[in-house]
Amino acid sequence: MNQIKFKSNVVILCDGAFPEHPIPLSYLKNAEQIICCDAAADKLIEHGMTPAYIVGDMDSVSEKTKSDFADRIVSSTDQETNDQTKAVDFVSKRGFKSVVILGATGKREDHTIGNISLLLDYASKLDVVSISNSGYFQPVLKSQKFDSFKGQQVSIFSIGNPTPVTSQNLKYPLNNTTLNSWWMGTLNECLSNTFSLEFSNGRFIVFQKFDV
Amino acid sequence: MNQIKFKSNVVILCDGAFPEHPIPLSYLKNAEQIICCDAAADKLIEHGMTPAYIVGDMDSVSEKTKSDFADRIVSSTDQETNDQTKAVDFVSKRGFKSVVILGATGKREDHTIGNISLLLDYASKLDVVSISNSGYFQPVLKSQKFDSFKGQQVSIFSIGNPTPVTSQNLKYPLNNTTLNSWWMGTLNECLSNTFSLEFSNGRFIVFQKFDV
Repeated sequence: MNQIKFKSNVVILCDGAFPEHPIPLSYLKNAEQIICCDAAADKLIEHGMTPAYIVGDMDSVSEKTKSDFADRIVSSTDQETNDQTKAVDFVSKRGFKSVVILGATGKREDHTIGNISLLLDYASKLDVVSISNSGYFQPVLKSQKFDSFKGQQVSIFSIGNPTPVTSQNLKYPLNNTTLNSWWMGTLNECLSNTFSLEFSNGRFIVFQKFDV
Repeated sequence: MNQIKFKSNVVILCDGAFPEHPIPLSYLKNAEQIICCDAAADKLIEHGMTPAYIVGDMDSVSEKTKSDFADRIVSSTDQETNDQTKAVDFVSKRGFKSVVILGATGKREDHTIGNISLLLDYASKLDVVSISNSGYFQPVLKSQKFDSFKGQQVSIFSIGNPTPVTSQNLKYPLNNTTLNSWWMGTLNECLSNTFSLEFSNGRFIVFQKFDV
């Protein structure tokens, strides 16, 4: 019960830690199209795969890759958005309704934190999940039930004005709890094969750790 | 102008990514006492250094280390606090007024995020900074000026109810800005050798990236 049920034909590969865990690797290998953020294209090519497009401000990708894939470069120097957001906008404008983001974490921690929170901004455009080498993050804008497994490590983060939230099937129950700091919803654990969160008008990021 | 001016004789080494960058390594090597969180002791010993104490729930440190350093083990299975907090409490109770935390990031992202936010909870007890391999995080509970350098990458995170904040000397000025999501204060840049933040009744984490 380790696998994520999320389905998407398109993967965005950011330039953080390259996928190593079998789950993000399987999304990468099975993607119909891999959209690379800037220098992530170099890493993808090193791993024997081919970018469908290379999106971003092109300040870090190699000259060789730029030349070899000149027809696939989507360059934008807009300073208001980072490369992950540029890639999501590109995917969304091409009509895709879901996307998996890989490699968004694992380098500068402020990039990691920023990239995770941006999922909430993308959620109005498409279904999105960000998968790291330890687990996966999803944006949560309404009460919902989550596929899980007994013993799964779960962390819940409230973004913006913290909203009271109530949980079902978590080891440390949230009971109209306001998560006033980032650590307050961390290190929880699912008691069954699903858990749920209930709240009004809140914005949350939920992390579910891989089994192994 | 890359060095942090923070001074402390005591270092807490968490069990995340081991220090590799010269700045956290120099804090580690110059510490009078290194307090290790659980299995971080094994890594410290592998690197030829010796823990003064080993604090935590002792569910991951090796049996050999437990046996070799039996007189330095401070075991606590309290489920309400993580090992980083147990180590800070231990240091604080021994009368120290400042501490440097290393290795708090770089593994599970939810641990990273939780550990960073906990700095605000420690700030009433002692002066604290958390130094990773990319930069350093500090808790900010009142308006203040920060030592920096021209071009330093800076990210500012509002914790809990977002409070309006105004900046001086940042490339993308905050002007009574409410940071409603984690990404909103990221990827800023210092314009001089200091910058400052002004606000009332807020709780912020400030990240300053190393020069190289």
